Amino acid sequence: MDLYLAPFDVLGNLAHATMLETINLLSSDELRMMSDELKTIYRQIEAGEFVIEEGVEDVHSQVELMLTRKLGDVGKKIHSGRSRNDQVLVDLKLFTRDRLWKVTEAVRQVFDRLIARSEQHKADLLPGYTHLQIAMPSSFGLWFGAYAEALADDMLLLQTAYRFANRNPLGSGAGYGSSFPLNRTLTTQLLGFEGMHVNVVYAQMSRGKTEQTALTALAAVAATLSRMAMDICLYNSQNFGFLTLPDALTTGSSIMPHKKNPDVAELLRAKTNRLKALPMEVTLVMSNLPSGYHRDMQILKEILMPAFEEMLDCLEITDFMLENIQVKPNLMDDPKYDLMFSVERVNALVLEGVPFREAYLMVKTEVEEGTYKASRELHHTHEGSLGNLGNDQIVKHMDANMQGFGAETVAEAVERLLA
Amino acid sequence: MDLYLAPFDVLGNLAHATMLETINLLSSDELRMMSDELKTIYRQIEAGEFVIEEGVEDVHSQVELMLTRKLGDVGKKIHSGRSRNDQVLVDLKLFTRDRLWKVTEAVRQVFDRLIARSEQHKADLLPGYTHLQIAMPSSFGLWFGAYAEALADDMLLLQTAYRFANRNPLGSGAGYGSSFPLNRTLTTQLLGFEGMHVNVVYAQMSRGKTEQTALTALAAVAATLSRMAMDICLYNSQNFGFLTLPDALTTGSSIMPHKKNPDVAELLRAKTNRLKALPMEVTLVMSNLPSGYHRDMQILKEILMPAFEEMLDCLEITDFMLENIQVKPNLMDDPKYDLMFSVERVNALVLEGVPFREAYLMVKTEVEEGTYKASRELHHTHEGSLGNLGNDQIVKHMDANMQGFGAETVAEAVERLLA
Amino acid sequence: MDLYLAPFDVLGNLAHATMLETINLLSSDELRMMSDELKTIYRQIEAGEFVIEEGVEDVHSQVELMLTRKLGDVGKKIHSGRSRNDQVLVDLKLFTRDRLWKVTEAVRQVFDRLIARSEQHKADLLPGYTHLQIAMPSSFGLWFGAYAEALADDMLLLQTAYRFANRNPLGSGAGYGSSFPLNRTLTTQLLGFEGMHVNVVYAQMSRGKTEQTALTALAAVAATLSRMAMDICLYNSQNFGFLTLPDALTTGSSIMPHKKNPDVAELLRAKTNRLKALPMEVTLVMSNLPSGYHRDMQILKEILMPAFEEMLDCLEITDFMLENIQVKPNLMDDPKYDLMFSVERVNALVLEGVPFREAYLMVKTEVEEGTYKASRELHHTHEGSLGNLGNDQIVKHMDANMQGFGAETVAEAVERLLA
Amino acid sequence: MDLYLAPFDVLGNLAHATMLETINLLSSDELRMMSDELKTIYRQIEAGEFVIEEGVEDVHSQVELMLTRKLGDVGKKIHSGRSRNDQVLVDLKLFTRDRLWKVTEAVRQVFDRLIARSEQHKADLLPGYTHLQIAMPSSFGLWFGAYAEALADDMLLLQTAYRFANRNPLGSGAGYGSSFPLNRTLTTQLLGFEGMHVNVVYAQMSRGKTEQTALTALAAVAATLSRMAMDICLYNSQNFGFLTLPDALTTGSSIMPHKKNPDVAELLRAKTNRLKALPMEVTLVMSNLPSGYHRDMQILKEILMPAFEEMLDCLEITDFMLENIQVKPNLMDDPKYDLMFSVERVNALVLEGVPFREAYLMVKTEVEEGTYKASRELHHTHEGSLGNLGNDQIVKHMDANMQGFGAETVAEAVERLLA
Repeated sequence: MDLYLAPFDVLGNLAHATMLETINLLSSDELRMMSDELKTIYRQIEAGEFVIEEGVEDVHSQVELMLTRKLGDVGKKIHSGRSRNDQVLVDLKLFTRDRLWKVTEAVRQVFDRLIARSEQHKADLLPGYTHLQIAMPSSFGLWFGAYAEALADDMLLLQTAYRFANRNPLGSGAGYGSSFPLNRTLTTQLLGFEGMHVNVVYAQMSRGKTEQTALTALAAVAATLSRMAMDICLYNSQNFGFLTLPDALTTGSSIMPHKKNPDVAELLRAKTNRLKALPMEVTLVMSNLPSGYHRDMQILKEILMPAFEEMLDCLEITDFMLENIQVKPNLMDDPKYDLMFSVERVNALVLEGVPFREAYLMVKTEVEEGTYKASRELHHTHEGSLGNLGNDQIVKHMDANMQGFGAETVAEAVERLLA
Repeated sequence: MDLYLAPFDVLGNLAHATMLETINLLSSDELRMMSDELKTIYRQIEAGEFVIEEGVEDVHSQVELMLTRKLGDVGKKIHSGRSRNDQVLVDLKLFTRDRLWKVTEAVRQVFDRLIARSEQHKADLLPGYTHLQIAMPSSFGLWFGAYAEALADDMLLLQTAYRFANRNPLGSGAGYGSSFPLNRTLTTQLLGFEGMHVNVVYAQMSRGKTEQTALTALAAVAATLSRMAMDICLYNSQNFGFLTLPDALTTGSSIMPHKKNPDVAELLRAKTNRLKALPMEVTLVMSNLPSGYHRDMQILKEILMPAFEEMLDCLEITDFMLENIQVKPNLMDDPKYDLMFSVERVNALVLEGVPFREAYLMVKTEVEEGTYKASRELHHTHEGSLGNLGNDQIVKHMDANMQGFGAETVAEAVERLLA
Repeated sequence: MDLYLAPFDVLGNLAHATMLETINLLSSDELRMMSDELKTIYRQIEAGEFVIEEGVEDVHSQVELMLTRKLGDVGKKIHSGRSRNDQVLVDLKLFTRDRLWKVTEAVRQVFDRLIARSEQHKADLLPGYTHLQIAMPSSFGLWFGAYAEALADDMLLLQTAYRFANRNPLGSGAGYGSSFPLNRTLTTQLLGFEGMHVNVVYAQMSRGKTEQTALTALAAVAATLSRMAMDICLYNSQNFGFLTLPDALTTGSSIMPHKKNPDVAELLRAKTNRLKALPMEVTLVMSNLPSGYHRDMQILKEILMPAFEEMLDCLEITDFMLENIQVKPNLMDDPKYDLMFSVERVNALVLEGVPFREAYLMVKTEVEEGTYKASRELHHTHEGSLGNLGNDQIVKHMDANMQGFGAETVAEAVERLLA
Repeated sequence: MDLYLAPFDVLGNLAHATMLETINLLSSDELRMMSDELKTIYRQIEAGEFVIEEGVEDVHSQVELMLTRKLGDVGKKIHSGRSRNDQVLVDLKLFTRDRLWKVTEAVRQVFDRLIARSEQHKADLLPGYTHLQIAMPSSFGLWFGAYAEALADDMLLLQTAYRFANRNPLGSGAGYGSSFPLNRTLTTQLLGFEGMHVNVVYAQMSRGKTEQTALTALAAVAATLSRMAMDICLYNSQNFGFLTLPDALTTGSSIMPHKKNPDVAELLRAKTNRLKALPMEVTLVMSNLPSGYHRDMQILKEILMPAFEEMLDCLEITDFMLENIQVKPNLMDDPKYDLMFSVERVNALVLEGVPFREAYLMVKTEVEEGTYKASRELHHTHEGSLGNLGNDQIVKHMDANMQGFGAETVAEAVERLLA
């Protein structure tokens, strides 16, 4: 898993080396040699040719080894004014920032899919439930759109997590700073960070917090997906029968020849439900640890890193499922849904001047006496309703939330550093 | 607990009534009567004179009862175009928005205290630990400042929670909208919301999410406080002896006549640790519920409401504790902390031109051979270090994060509505 | 909440005093006076006349105050060889043991109800689902019986929790024992404990563990109830329509005149889901606390005590609901459940000699080609199947698990102590 | 991971085949062929030669493929009267039972080590703390013994988990039984199960419960280990200095040449803290799933299986650490621990006839006025105290708890089945 950190370790090294030259701990020649070599390593990583050699402890040692192998004593100077602690911290920040953006882009893809399906099915009615009891008419336009807006809101948590990750801990050493006159503002700019973790003791304390916030954001997205998966499993049941899943998303049974089970939706539900537990794992590892670094924090990597992979997989399968779900037409024509139109009848009476509470009692009596007749005419016009989904507003909300990340500034800085 | 919602129910009623008049479901006379009566009720609530009468189900029914008692049939019209569901939802949004701001202000007070103590003790050295092993010199300036910066970062989560709460669900009815031509933009503006939950199905789905995000923010603040409480308990142990707690914050033992136990810090630690569990409670109640309202969601109030009280109590006691903690001077003079200056010795050698890895080995040998001598001179100058705490930057970060709430706009809107 | 402990504090005092006399720290006259007075206090508690007076710290101080008020210096001797820590611990053990037994009895009542309903409805078929897809015939006999057996198994966890609670910590002082020659075996016998927490350091460490294990057992019962509540909410939906809930267990809607919502089942689901979070609260309070008593542990009472009340309420409402649920007859006659009999067709072919995998493919082809015809004849005879529920075995399992508590021995000891 | 199940799949097949013969679904010749082949496969698994071939879905299909490859149509008959669901269930039960016993044996080894170290150091005093404040004299004998007794109590939860796992679900099919006249009592006996999950619907419902209970037991053991690891990290800090860890269990720092960090203890603490989260993961996957099988349950394997490996690793490293920890002698001679003997002084006064509360105040005054003098004489004689550790009673408790598993009966049945 340590390999995930390799490109970010190189970036951190490049920024640190550039800064060391400005405070005369590297000559400009040494910096040039070191930068060239680091960029070579970066290209090797990108080409998939980077390996941690037998006997080398971790990715950081491997990069350092490659530097000293090429540059001798010059290579050793890279560790001046730095501790393994703040080196790992900055790598983790860069990694987390990168993966959170990948998740964000994948969420956006699912969001776009949901909006498209919502528009496609805005006229397809769907029974609406409260308390799992038939309630009022809904539509697939509303149903798909609802999950789109949920993701737009989840974006706020992803943004917060991104901004937690997007702060520079470099220069905090082992949590107590350094007697070297480090220029932390410079490395902050070079690495495209939004700002720095100023206080060196706090910079170390941000370990745990960064992972926690990232996993909390993933858990929020996971909660949205798991709820959608539950709906899909339910709507796919013969007793609802609102959706059809393509064969690629169902499996048969070893003893029941008639079965088409929604295994993929169930696995999505289970995997996203499991993701919701991860913030608690971080909490448990960190609880009641006094301030200062503890080796315990290394374990957080084992929680965080696979979570990103799992989340990205879940988003990919969600997108595929949403692309292929088939919606059953004319669902509301079934007479068992007649009562769903009772509120329309109440409202019609109100518009004729009957006070609401009285209109309600009149229709209740009609229902109880069997004289109620459903009128399937629907005139919902307000924002966000059946007849006026407001998807354009939801897209604007999503756009605004994504802009708050500052991801472009980050991309530009990284490009500049590697140029 | 329902009483907590009373003032917010009145605000929601005021906005809803104002809107109903614009779509001709109330006459302007009816609106005036209703508004006057609602403002009267609001003043009763503020004066502590509002009660839920015997036999009345909840706070919403009580307000409605008071309206109809005074206004007769006019009072009944308030429920047009609204469901109990979106009424409760909007009350909860307004309540949560309000309490999150109260928590934010209390966090700010603790933050200001920490910054003040940090400045006061910037010259008071404190042993710094990693792995609970003596590591490098720190200071009380750094220690207090670290927790201040932690709170500044936690503010981002409070801001996110606030913005989740600050969206208008009114008009979503029971989750499937209304056939009345509601003007949801108007109620959004009247109640000072940043925006609306557009999709009516999603508006209901925001139930659970709002509570979860609020409790996640409280949990983040709680995690910062619990870690500080752990430090205090440890530093107050005779084996560390870094702090003294005043008598008001300690208690004795029933059998050991010499004891001064840090009970208050321990209770703070326990209470904040417990607060960290609450997001999981919400998760458990909501997990695998299909979309649409379920009565389960009512239970979330029982989790959310006492959590705000507990959080505010914890912040108050923290502030009192931080005000009264006494810091022990000259801690680092103890020879057992000699080795904490070994990195300074390494860095001095580096500045003389010795490559870092070699300097490190030289000092390691000195330590092993007993020839190492500690020099207590410290020259930390970089941002966020011992000699340059950077508290002004941290304060700016806090200020910026608080501005993002948009709390002033909210306050103005509420004032206008009640005018 | 402290009042919950009052009767148990008296029991602990009685046992401790009796023991003190055997090691000559009380004269037999003093013991007699003290015992008489303690029994008087016990009767006051039972009569609901015991109060903690203004200014008295807790229940333990109140009992001691009442003793010294009556007996003077003799009363003060009760605290010899004891710390507040082991006094609270023993009270909590006795309280937890008592409440776990109350929960056990309430579980047994629900169990008996389930068995009765299972027998009553053994002939009432119910569609069986896997993956929420119609699968094979089940019955209400099986469905009720399944939850009965679940509770019988949960009993094992209740038994374990009971046995954790049923060990004597008295004599461990503040966690480091006493220089008095206490006879801990005697207090163990007097209080009816199964055994003692021998090691005095461990006796204190059992704090947290005892609460955790008790709450884990409650969480197991809660998980069984919440799953049953989910089934009930689903089966009560018009799309399933398997059950009818009486009016006392449903509520209407403020805008939909046709609704009968299963609010009670939903609240049961939510409350039991919330109970499932409580072991984690204890974990969070206790995590990474070093050995030895910390005041944090006092907070555990606030988690444990209301949990018992909530659990008992949930069990009571479950019992009432199970008593009143009406089962719909002849559900399987609906042609939409035809395919549920396909396995029967496969098995019939197997019994005619066709290898299973081939029979399966033959029926699958029949289903796909529309030639499959359902035969509704069912001959399930094996243990635990439709036609042979095995409820008598399940009752035996329950009986055996309850006998393992040793609750009779406990009751006898308590009676003897109070005689 | 599926490979873990291979030997247990063979055992399940052996028992099922044996039973099929008794109800004439296999001839005795067919049974003999099948048994021989299954035992051959078992030996291949034991020899590490078993693989799941390319394109084969899972371990169950692989075993079936090997059977049919050798035996043709006879091989196909093994699936009669069985579903993939109850096949997987019985495999998981057998696997969980097996691993829980392995964990139990590893716990016992750590327990034995703790008892041995406790006896070895019964005379080595150790400062005892409450509230992290120096309190009263303890000893390494007590400290090691306390964790031994904790493990003896944890054994009760392991036993409960074992007994949950030790019940036969075979014959429950897909959760609705079978029309074949299966003899479930026979397979229960053949596989050495303590009993069967009678009700077929419940047998499926035991999925999730079994994993939950197993992980709850692991979490209890993990909580004991993590607390011990916290003590070790604290006692290893220079500010306590009670323990020395051998070089194999510490690591240095990349910038501080003097450091010996207790990384192994910290990793043990983190890993065990993380294990404490796993029951909640199962809870989250299972919450609010209606009865009947769902594919979600497959994910539970991914939680359960690595947990056993992690637990066994943690127990191994704990044992190694406990073997090699060096205890510092004469710790209590340090004058800073003088006050720890104040209770001894109080008790001495009580034995001279002073009522406890007065003696307490006298010593409190001595301490405050500086006239208190510590007497280091200790005469703790009661059960479980400094001078009378009671380790033999603790060993008896452990032995009794282990006997309750019934593991010997299991081992004999498995041996018989494979004979």
